Amino acid sequence: MTSDNSPSATRTTSFLTDKYELTMLQAALRDGTANRQCTFEVFSRKLPNERRYGVVAGTERVLRAVRDFRFTEEQLATMDFLDEQALDYLRNYKFSGQIDGYREGDLYFPYSPILTVRGTFAECVILETVILSIMNADSAVASAAARMVTAADGRPIIEMGSRRTHEYAAVTAARAAYLAGFQATSNMEASFRYGIPASGTSAHAWTLLHINEDGTPNEKAAFQAQVDSLGPSTTLLVDTYDITQGVQTAVEVAGPELGGVRIDSGDLGALTRRVRKQLDDLGAYNTKIVVSSDLDEFAIAGLRGDPVDVYGVGTSVVTGSGAPTAGMVYKLVEVDGHPVFKRSRGKAMTGGTKCAVRAYRETGVAVEEIVYPFDAEEPKVNGLTTRSLVYPFVRDGERTDQEFTLDESRDYLAAQIETLPWEGLALSRDEPAINTRFTGFPETAYEKPHR
Amino acid sequence: MTSDNSPSATRTTSFLTDKYELTMLQAALRDGTANRQCTFEVFSRKLPNERRYGVVAGTERVLRAVRDFRFTEEQLATMDFLDEQALDYLRNYKFSGQIDGYREGDLYFPYSPILTVRGTFAECVILETVILSIMNADSAVASAAARMVTAADGRPIIEMGSRRTHEYAAVTAARAAYLAGFQATSNMEASFRYGIPASGTSAHAWTLLHINEDGTPNEKAAFQAQVDSLGPSTTLLVDTYDITQGVQTAVEVAGPELGGVRIDSGDLGALTRRVRKQLDDLGAYNTKIVVSSDLDEFAIAGLRGDPVDVYGVGTSVVTGSGAPTAGMVYKLVEVDGHPVFKRSRGKAMTGGTKCAVRAYRETGVAVEEIVYPFDAEEPKVNGLTTRSLVYPFVRDGERTDQEFTLDESRDYLAAQIETLPWEGLALSRDEPAINTRFTGFPETAYEKPHR
Repeated sequence: MTSDNSPSATRTTSFLTDKYELTMLQAALRDGTANRQCTFEVFSRKLPNERRYGVVAGTERVLRAVRDFRFTEEQLATMDFLDEQALDYLRNYKFSGQIDGYREGDLYFPYSPILTVRGTFAECVILETVILSIMNADSAVASAAARMVTAADGRPIIEMGSRRTHEYAAVTAARAAYLAGFQATSNMEASFRYGIPASGTSAHAWTLLHINEDGTPNEKAAFQAQVDSLGPSTTLLVDTYDITQGVQTAVEVAGPELGGVRIDSGDLGALTRRVRKQLDDLGAYNTKIVVSSDLDEFAIAGLRGDPVDVYGVGTSVVTGSGAPTAGMVYKLVEVDGHPVFKRSRGKAMTGGTKCAVRAYRETGVAVEEIVYPFDAEEPKVNGLTTRSLVYPFVRDGERTDQEFTLDESRDYLAAQIETLPWEGLALSRDEPAINTRFTGFPETAYEKPHR
Repeated sequence: MTSDNSPSATRTTSFLTDKYELTMLQAALRDGTANRQCTFEVFSRKLPNERRYGVVAGTERVLRAVRDFRFTEEQLATMDFLDEQALDYLRNYKFSGQIDGYREGDLYFPYSPILTVRGTFAECVILETVILSIMNADSAVASAAARMVTAADGRPIIEMGSRRTHEYAAVTAARAAYLAGFQATSNMEASFRYGIPASGTSAHAWTLLHINEDGTPNEKAAFQAQVDSLGPSTTLLVDTYDITQGVQTAVEVAGPELGGVRIDSGDLGALTRRVRKQLDDLGAYNTKIVVSSDLDEFAIAGLRGDPVDVYGVGTSVVTGSGAPTAGMVYKLVEVDGHPVFKRSRGKAMTGGTKCAVRAYRETGVAVEEIVYPFDAEEPKVNGLTTRSLVYPFVRDGERTDQEFTLDESRDYLAAQIETLPWEGLALSRDEPAINTRFTGFPETAYEKPHR
């Protein structure tokens, strides 16, 4: 037990794990099943809140977490519930199998085989928790963020939700939001670690700090000091006391070249129209209006007709806008070449190692996703173009050259969003934008037919 | 930019920060306001989802994060947006002010002054994000978890939600759930770091791994191997194929001394009654029934009349059961002795540094929370006993002896829950269990009266 706030000093990811994975490992080593060749698959049975599509995020972080999944002597010493055989196995653990999957920034739908991990039971089973933690957290944020980007209709969004989520979840949430098309983050560590542009304005505390000797407010002093420090291109927060007065003072202080004003409360539609007129009347034609205040994709869309230049989004994006986890699972689907699956009611799945293509019309619009056995030939569909969705990321434990930078994945997602049928971009609840169809599996691989 | 998965190599918490805090710092150093004596306060305007009470969690982690809030040369080198004066300030930064607040495991209500940070503007403002990230994440989980513990009515709950949240949020979520009265966690790192008991059963993958050579299921082999490895006191997962058959096989393999069976799907009420009867008929009177499957406080309460011995809770607890963030804010409330507050509509607050007591009837039932000026005398209420809620945690930058272990805080919370009026334990939506009253503040400290 360490008293440290920060993650494990060892920087290994191996304890980001549920205990039962380790006890299963021990039992498997004892009964000889540990070396059975297995396939585990990450997929989602449904999209949260009846959304139309999900966004794959976290894959690159997963691949690094697998690389860093090693056990230290300090960790091994604490696991008094394991026998020597199990401890020895963990001491020498290094994933040596295969990982295939959708690239970050791709879309996914129910039962898309998002990540496929092959190897011995022992080496695959203990990766379950860390793989799911990362994929579920990152995909939840990216999936919500992508809807916000669509709703913003080309206007930039800044992620500023760090304070509303776990201090390290904040860092990866910023990454997922950027992947989904956000323009910048408020978070310093995300900027430092992932090279995401950092952005910010100022807080109400800044304005409140500036009082006269008798304690009365002095908003002008606050604005003046900010402009002196950051230049007139800065964004001034104008809603601490009275917005109309705040805008007036802001332009007085910074001149008509003031970069922006931020409004963080009130009826943003009515306010932005009034503030735009006021700014124009003051000659501040190029001064941007930045809005924040519990915005989600619906509020963003609701402001589409209003003179908003930049959205600042916090709580809703880092908490997945009503879906804080993506609901992905990591399931054993094949053992020594045999498809396996749980048969309990209500949790249908298809056994066997899988691959997938997406089929498109000539216009580039996606029509369906087709899932087929990993070793089978890629299915063709008359009149449609198909594209393989599954990349080989790891071979015999080593990373392949299929690596994508965050910016590449961001561009890739923007292109994929373009392929959605129109109704797939709607914010309302409905069926997934495209159907997922299974083909080529033997009857024994199914619990019950998919849609 | 590092490519590492794990948090910043430096272990400092200083980049878990929004950029605007640093630009405000720079502007304050330039205009001479950086040294104004300020008070920032962590509070919540309302309880999420109309709950009756909130649980304070994260305080101990916050205090460590403040201690570790130092800037490295590597970090300083990346901040090309700051001037030399600001960089020098950060290079020598060490919080030297005062921190007071509610202890972990206490209850909170709207406008409870949960944490009060006093010092210069400069040293306090840059702590905003990391303090809120921790308090909002940990309190969200603890507040949800406490309701689940009440709903479970004495039966143990195991936290098993790591896979549904960010890999490091999982660790602190386990801590917050344990604080709230959960009995154990599945998470290895939480057990390692915080000394929380780790627990686990097995996954469906374990059963699915055990197939015959022709690919047909062999549940018995799976159970036998688990019992061989972990002994008959283990808990067997019986719902992979057919629950009745699974229970039969489980007792055959382990004998009537089988520790437990876990059911992870289906109508848990009907199933547990059937399984209890089956177990009893098999002579397995002491075999416990463990249930999991998307349980939240309402589902737990719904099973109160059924023969459930242990609850396993995942998604709902780590995501705050519908409230993934606690909604706490960090607001400047006093500058050089003057109360300050934002006057925008809809975001009322009271200026000034605060203290609080809770008043109780002779029976020990809490009646109200009374907030008063920090330097004033503790208010007395006729016929009621009052208890101070605010502890001095940091003096002149150094931790006081007011430290509480996780187990102490856990016991403390259990005692506080006992003081709630009966209606305060209801799961339904309503007003906070007790009222928060402000007294002794000058008229100038208010935006508008509190309830």
